[in-house]
Amino acid sequence: MERIKARTLSGFMELLPADQAKMERFMEVLRNTYSLYGFTALDTPVIEAAEVLLAKGGGDTEKQIYRFTKGDTDLAMRFDLTVPLAKYVAINYANLSFPFRRYQIGKVYRGERAQRGRFREFYQADIDIIGDGKLDIINEAEIPSVIYRTFSRLGLSKFVIRVNNRKILNGFYAMLGLSERSGDIMRTVDKLDKIGAEKVKALLMGEEIALSEADADEILKFIAITGSNAEVLAALEGYRGRNEVFDAGLEELSAVVAYLPEFGVPEANFAVDLTIARGLDYYTGTVYETLMVEHPEIGSICSGGRYDNLAGYYTDKALPGVGISIGVTRLFYVLQEQGLLSDEIVAAPAEVLVIPMTDDIAYAVKTATILRDAGIRTQLYTEKKKFKARMSYASKLGFPYTVLIGEDEMAEGVVALKDMTSGEQVKLPAEEAAAIIRSAMEKKAKAAVIKE
Amino acid sequence: MERIKARTLSGFMELLPADQAKMERFMEVLRNTYSLYGFTALDTPVIEAAEVLLAKGGGDTEKQIYRFTKGDTDLAMRFDLTVPLAKYVAINYANLSFPFRRYQIGKVYRGERAQRGRFREFYQADIDIIGDGKLDIINEAEIPSVIYRTFSRLGLSKFVIRVNNRKILNGFYAMLGLSERSGDIMRTVDKLDKIGAEKVKALLMGEEIALSEADADEILKFIAITGSNAEVLAALEGYRGRNEVFDAGLEELSAVVAYLPEFGVPEANFAVDLTIARGLDYYTGTVYETLMVEHPEIGSICSGGRYDNLAGYYTDKALPGVGISIGVTRLFYVLQEQGLLSDEIVAAPAEVLVIPMTDDIAYAVKTATILRDAGIRTQLYTEKKKFKARMSYASKLGFPYTVLIGEDEMAEGVVALKDMTSGEQVKLPAEEAAAIIRSAMEKKAKAAVIKE
Repeated sequence: MERIKARTLSGFMELLPADQAKMERFMEVLRNTYSLYGFTALDTPVIEAAEVLLAKGGGDTEKQIYRFTKGDTDLAMRFDLTVPLAKYVAINYANLSFPFRRYQIGKVYRGERAQRGRFREFYQADIDIIGDGKLDIINEAEIPSVIYRTFSRLGLSKFVIRVNNRKILNGFYAMLGLSERSGDIMRTVDKLDKIGAEKVKALLMGEEIALSEADADEILKFIAITGSNAEVLAALEGYRGRNEVFDAGLEELSAVVAYLPEFGVPEANFAVDLTIARGLDYYTGTVYETLMVEHPEIGSICSGGRYDNLAGYYTDKALPGVGISIGVTRLFYVLQEQGLLSDEIVAAPAEVLVIPMTDDIAYAVKTATILRDAGIRTQLYTEKKKFKARMSYASKLGFPYTVLIGEDEMAEGVVALKDMTSGEQVKLPAEEAAAIIRSAMEKKAKAAVIKE
Repeated sequence: MERIKARTLSGFMELLPADQAKMERFMEVLRNTYSLYGFTALDTPVIEAAEVLLAKGGGDTEKQIYRFTKGDTDLAMRFDLTVPLAKYVAINYANLSFPFRRYQIGKVYRGERAQRGRFREFYQADIDIIGDGKLDIINEAEIPSVIYRTFSRLGLSKFVIRVNNRKILNGFYAMLGLSERSGDIMRTVDKLDKIGAEKVKALLMGEEIALSEADADEILKFIAITGSNAEVLAALEGYRGRNEVFDAGLEELSAVVAYLPEFGVPEANFAVDLTIARGLDYYTGTVYETLMVEHPEIGSICSGGRYDNLAGYYTDKALPGVGISIGVTRLFYVLQEQGLLSDEIVAAPAEVLVIPMTDDIAYAVKTATILRDAGIRTQLYTEKKKFKARMSYASKLGFPYTVLIGEDEMAEGVVALKDMTSGEQVKLPAEEAAAIIRSAMEKKAKAAVIKE
């Protein structure tokens, strides 16, 4: 037979089973946490009509998109989950109840230049809340709670949800009469973390933006406002009354901060940060970023914000919303690279491997069935190999337990349960073995995906 | 703004939230049941290099495949989960332990002619067990147990797993000296259910296959062997000793049947059926089909079999295996069409909707947090609407419970828990409300997806 070299395309993640087990757990935490907040699951096609997907058009999107024809149809693969959501809401508007809260975890496609840690196929895990005509600020206040619980459940404690409000920024630049240049200014200010205040000031006064030194200083003073949430809000109060948009933004930001305790978000995990702006054309109110405190180099692991018009290119209905997105594949890759994935999670295909040591394996099969009936993930070892090979299979795959069945066990109506970590072995009825395994697994079930 | 008409491509399933909730539960049952048998989760790319995906080549596959170029790369979208598995095992052979058991639930793509109930993007849910060089028959005996438990958990009881063995068929045709025509014969015999014995006989004796009447009668007599498993096996014993392949097949089939009780598969859900052959070029041993007894028109809802060579076009390693596949999207569609999806499953985004009836909603937010901490899926109603509109939102979305919070509840430190089905309303602390909701939800959690 002529052979083809098997390979997986670069930029496409494909994990070995033990790592995939961690990824599955990661996904499960996301599904469960999103569900806990009343987000309903959604699944949309990977392929859409190109004209629909590119309705908004322009920019990097068109260059990176996977687009092709099949028959006469111009098709494209989704590059995010927001455009498909907009399409979905526009189509199903009459059948949905608003606020409409959905989560979607799915693969998206971007033909980016291949490089280490960049993926062309990657999972995004999004939540969005869509209002019909309007949407209360409390939704924006709830988002940090979702972020906090998600990452806490994943095992992180050292992270900060950084929050700002675009109205505060827009209002501030309007006060200075710089509204028209505010986009360029915010893009520059966004670099503060990377290049420092000096260079930001130089850029602001440079040829392109050409601010006066007074304006540049005013801006640097503004974005230098830091401290506790209360301190930052107090400092912002000093600007109140000079611009309506600013004042509205300050009201919103204050509301978001005010509800944090009731939403269960510790102050330590939340910071008002006037330097962040996010998606300049899109967001209109609260914006979010999430940083791992000890790994700022990873960048934001969860971002999003409030927008006024989800589906303007499909419908004349005003559909304001707020949403966040986690770039699951990239985050998982980075955590793996940095050795931050926990080894607590059972990476084996099951909790127990049942190993028959007699020719007649009916008793072993029966044992496996009893364990499965009791809800224990159970694999039956079936191959006619030497004992050593069987145990080596069990330890290579990392089964926490094995159940050995020989003539003695069959005669006594018991099984030999071996704890593969401690090496301890006990003889007992299969039902009792199930109880022991279950209790150990219940502890493991709470194991975090991320270690710090 | 210029508007584009939002639409979803035909042949691509996109469900409304309440139906998606059922689909999510369907998927959850599949994941959990497959896991229970020690199948490890796998995720492979949707896109592969075309030469890799089409290594086997030929047939309908090439016509239906979504294939396109991006840059210089010839790409194709997977049309099943078996070829990606073969690729994966060939690439990762050295890092896997055999038998390698994996499940994969993922979307596959086939550009079939659009028609009602045919999908171009659909989920397959596969399990496979791959051996290194050899694979014990017990694996083939375990598969009916996986099928039985999967559909039982989905809520079905009236289904039959039909099993045959290709060696029995091949051996039988060899006895008659008809090996060369066995492919054509089996394709014809496969039509028995649809066209009846008379027409099958006519076809067998027709121009194309041209069997003698004696041979045709012999074949019809053979495939007419029916009865209990024991009766069919007894009848097959009558052919023993005339052909080695037949005898090997009979041994295998007997072993598969013998372990059914220990694997917990009731005789009523299992039938040896000599008429089924499945995938003629691929399967070499046990083959499986699954029929809904009262809906045979749906066809097989879970099929598969034993094959000798998973990845011959990528590697010289002999990799025999056995696997089954469920065409999830089509099955779900058919169940939905026939009204066979249960309404027991909570279709709402959450179990409870917390509705504040005061301006200060801090207490309501705190209540939502308490419920979520207790593991209750909770949505907070946030919009400033009239009471009637709030309750209408709750009932439209089908929340099983609402929690109402007014001045009285705040003053007393309680919540008003309303059972939306019975209309009953009680005042009690949030923690007690959580306990009531949890106990109701635990019952719902066992609700079947399929009703009969």
